[in-house]
Amino acid sequence: MGPGPSDVEPRVLAAMSRPTIGHLDPLFISLMDEIKTMLQYAFQTKNTLTIPLSAPGSAGMECCFANLIETGDHIIICQNGVFGGRMKENVERCGGVAIMVQSTWGRAIDANQLEESLKVNPQAKIVAFVHAETSTGVLSDAKTLVALAKSYDCLTIVDAVTSLGGSKLYVDAWGIDAVYAGTQKCLSCTPGLSPVSFSEAAQQKIKHRKTKVQSWFLDLNLIMAYWGSENKRAYHHTAPVNSLYALHEALLILQKESLEKAWARHAHHHHALRSGLEAMGLNFVVPEGERLAQLNAVCIPKGVDDNALRQALLQDYSLEIGAGLESMAAKVWRIGLMGYACRQENVLKCLAALEDVFSRMNAPIDRGVALSAAHKVYSQPRMSNHDL
Amino acid sequence: MGPGPSDVEPRVLAAMSRPTIGHLDPLFISLMDEIKTMLQYAFQTKNTLTIPLSAPGSAGMECCFANLIETGDHIIICQNGVFGGRMKENVERCGGVAIMVQSTWGRAIDANQLEESLKVNPQAKIVAFVHAETSTGVLSDAKTLVALAKSYDCLTIVDAVTSLGGSKLYVDAWGIDAVYAGTQKCLSCTPGLSPVSFSEAAQQKIKHRKTKVQSWFLDLNLIMAYWGSENKRAYHHTAPVNSLYALHEALLILQKESLEKAWARHAHHHHALRSGLEAMGLNFVVPEGERLAQLNAVCIPKGVDDNALRQALLQDYSLEIGAGLESMAAKVWRIGLMGYACRQENVLKCLAALEDVFSRMNAPIDRGVALSAAHKVYSQPRMSNHDL
Repeated sequence: MGPGPSDVEPRVLAAMSRPTIGHLDPLFISLMDEIKTMLQYAFQTKNTLTIPLSAPGSAGMECCFANLIETGDHIIICQNGVFGGRMKENVERCGGVAIMVQSTWGRAIDANQLEESLKVNPQAKIVAFVHAETSTGVLSDAKTLVALAKSYDCLTIVDAVTSLGGSKLYVDAWGIDAVYAGTQKCLSCTPGLSPVSFSEAAQQKIKHRKTKVQSWFLDLNLIMAYWGSENKRAYHHTAPVNSLYALHEALLILQKESLEKAWARHAHHHHALRSGLEAMGLNFVVPEGERLAQLNAVCIPKGVDDNALRQALLQDYSLEIGAGLESMAAKVWRIGLMGYACRQENVLKCLAALEDVFSRMNAPIDRGVALSAAHKVYSQPRMSNHDL
Repeated sequence: MGPGPSDVEPRVLAAMSRPTIGHLDPLFISLMDEIKTMLQYAFQTKNTLTIPLSAPGSAGMECCFANLIETGDHIIICQNGVFGGRMKENVERCGGVAIMVQSTWGRAIDANQLEESLKVNPQAKIVAFVHAETSTGVLSDAKTLVALAKSYDCLTIVDAVTSLGGSKLYVDAWGIDAVYAGTQKCLSCTPGLSPVSFSEAAQQKIKHRKTKVQSWFLDLNLIMAYWGSENKRAYHHTAPVNSLYALHEALLILQKESLEKAWARHAHHHHALRSGLEAMGLNFVVPEGERLAQLNAVCIPKGVDDNALRQALLQDYSLEIGAGLESMAAKVWRIGLMGYACRQENVLKCLAALEDVFSRMNAPIDRGVALSAAHKVYSQPRMSNHDL
C-alpha cells in the first residue's frame, strides 16, 4: 500500500510467466493490436498512436518531451510536487526552455496562475503538468488546464502515471495531446512499461520535426513503424514480451470491470480509509475536494518516528506504506490504494495495523475508532460514478 | 530458435510471477545487490558500476553513447552488420561525430582497418563495435580490437547483446570500458532489460562531464545513486521488479552451470547443428573461425521461398527461425542456439523440421543425412573450453 508498485492481480502474474514467443510472431502481433485497442479504452481515446513503451513511466515522460520539443522551444510547466520538477529536468535536457508555474505542494494546480503565465509567454508552445501528483496525493483539474492551454494554442503533455485506471481521465474529450502513464499503479500490473497516447496534432508535430529526436530508443517515428500499421512491422527493438502478456491481462481485467466501476471502487475504499484515518486524528496533506483516492498522504503525528513505524508495519504486517519525498521527507506518509490493492481487506488491515503500531509507540491518536469509522462507510451504499 | 528472444528457462518464468514487492523494500535491495554480483561474474569484471538497465538492449546501447559522448566528440565505429549502423545513429543523436570503419557484412571486423583509422584520426576518443553481430552471425576479436583502441588512448564501447553468456567475454582482462547486453539471448531470460558495465575510467569520464547527459532516464549519474552505494538508495525510477526476479534466477542458473561450461555448451550444439546443415548442402554466411555458436546464418537455397519456409516451420513445428535483416533480407536465415534453447533436442528438431519442409518444397538439398551428421557430433566427447 505504498505509492506503487502496488499489488498485482494474480491473473496478471500468471500471464507473465507464459512461454516467451518471438516479438515478430503473428500471434504476438495480434496481442499487440489488442493491447493498443484496450489502451485506447483505458485512456478514452481514438488516438492511433496509443501504445506501451518498453520502459517505465519516467521513460514515458522523457518520450513525450524528447519527441515534442525542438531546441529553443518554450514549455510552461505547472509544478505542485516532485514530478513537475522532473519535467523541468527533461525539458532542459531536450534543449527546451522551461517556464515554471509554481503551485503549493499538496494543492491542485491553480488555473489562474497558468493563465497569467500563458498571457505573458506567448512564445510558449506546450503546457505540461501532472494530473495526479504521487508525491503529495493531489488531483489537478486536467480538463480545465488543458482547455486553457488550447485556448492559447499550446499543445499539452499530461502525466497520468498514477491517474490512469484510478481517476477520471478522458484524453479525447479533454483534448490532451500527449499523455504517459505507468503499469504499476492503478492498472494492477507489474512495473516496467509506460502506456502513452498522442493526438493527431502531436503526431503531426513529431512527423514534421526539423531535427531528429535526440533519443533513438524513444523516437516515436521509429516506434510507430513497429507498433503502428497493421501489415508492416519494422524491427526497432526487442519488445519485452512477457511484460506485455501481463499488461494484456491487466487491461482485460480493467475492461471487464469497466473504467467507471474502477474509478468508483477507488473512491469508495478511499472514503473508508479516510474515515478511519481521520477518526484516529490523522490529518490529510491535501484539502478535501483535491484529494486522490489512490494516494492518501497524511501528516506524521508529532513524536512518532517515521522509519520505526514503517519498519514495524513491514515486519509485523508485511505492509508497505510510502515515505515522503524531498521537502515532505519525514513529514508525511503516503498510503496507496491502487488497482488490485484497492479493496476492503486492505483498508481494514491498514487501519488495524496502524492502530496497533501507534499504540505500541504511545502515539497521540484516538484508539478503537478507526475500524468502526471505516465499517460505517462500508455499510452504506457504494457511491455511483456520478458522485465522484 | 530465432535471433532472440530465445526460449526462457521454466525456472526463470516461474520466478517472474512471484508477488511484486516494493522497489525500495529491504528484501528487494538485497536482490539488487545479488544481481550486481552475479552480473560481475557474467561479465568477468570487478567494475562497481555493473547493473541491469530497466529497458531493452537498444536502450543499453544508447546509455553508453549518451553518457560517454559530449558534443563534438569523435567516435570510431567499426561496422560489419546492422547494429554498427545503429551505433552511428546513436552517436550522431548524442552530438558526436561518427567515423565509420566498414568491414564486409558477415566477416569479423578487420583490426588493420581500425588501426589505419586510429592513425589518421588522433582526435577520436572512443572506439565502438559489436562483439557478436546478430544480423550476420559473426564474432569479432574483441580482445585485439580493445587492445588496439587503448594503445591509441581511446575508450571502448562493446555491444555484447548476443555474446554475453554464449561466447568468451572477459571485460576486465580485455580492458573494455563500457559494455551492454540483453537478457533475452544467451542468458535464457525474458526480454526487457539491458545489463551494462562501466570501467573506472568510463565512470570518471561520466562523473566529470561538462554538460548533463541528454537523457534523464539513462543518466548514469542518477542511476548510480539508485543502484550504486549500499546504504543510500536515491529514488530514480520504479524498477521493473518482476523482470529483475527473472534476471536474478537466470544468473543463478548461469552461475551454477559456470560460464565456461555455458560457452562450451553453445560451441558443442553449434557443431552438431552446423554438421547437419552442411550435410544438407546449406552454406554458412560466415567463414569458419569467425562464426558465432549462438547465431547460425545460412544462405537460402535457390528456388526456396523464404516466407513460405519460415511459416511452415512455425505452423507445423512451432519453430521460429529468423529472417535476414536489411541487405540480407530474403537471402539468409538466422538460426539461434541461445541459452536454454541451446540443447540437443532443439538441434535435432530443427534439422528434422527443415528436412521435412525442404522435401515438401522440392528444395535442392541432400536428404536423409542431416540427423546422422548431427548424431555423429553428439557421439563424440564434448569439446572442452580450451578448444573453443
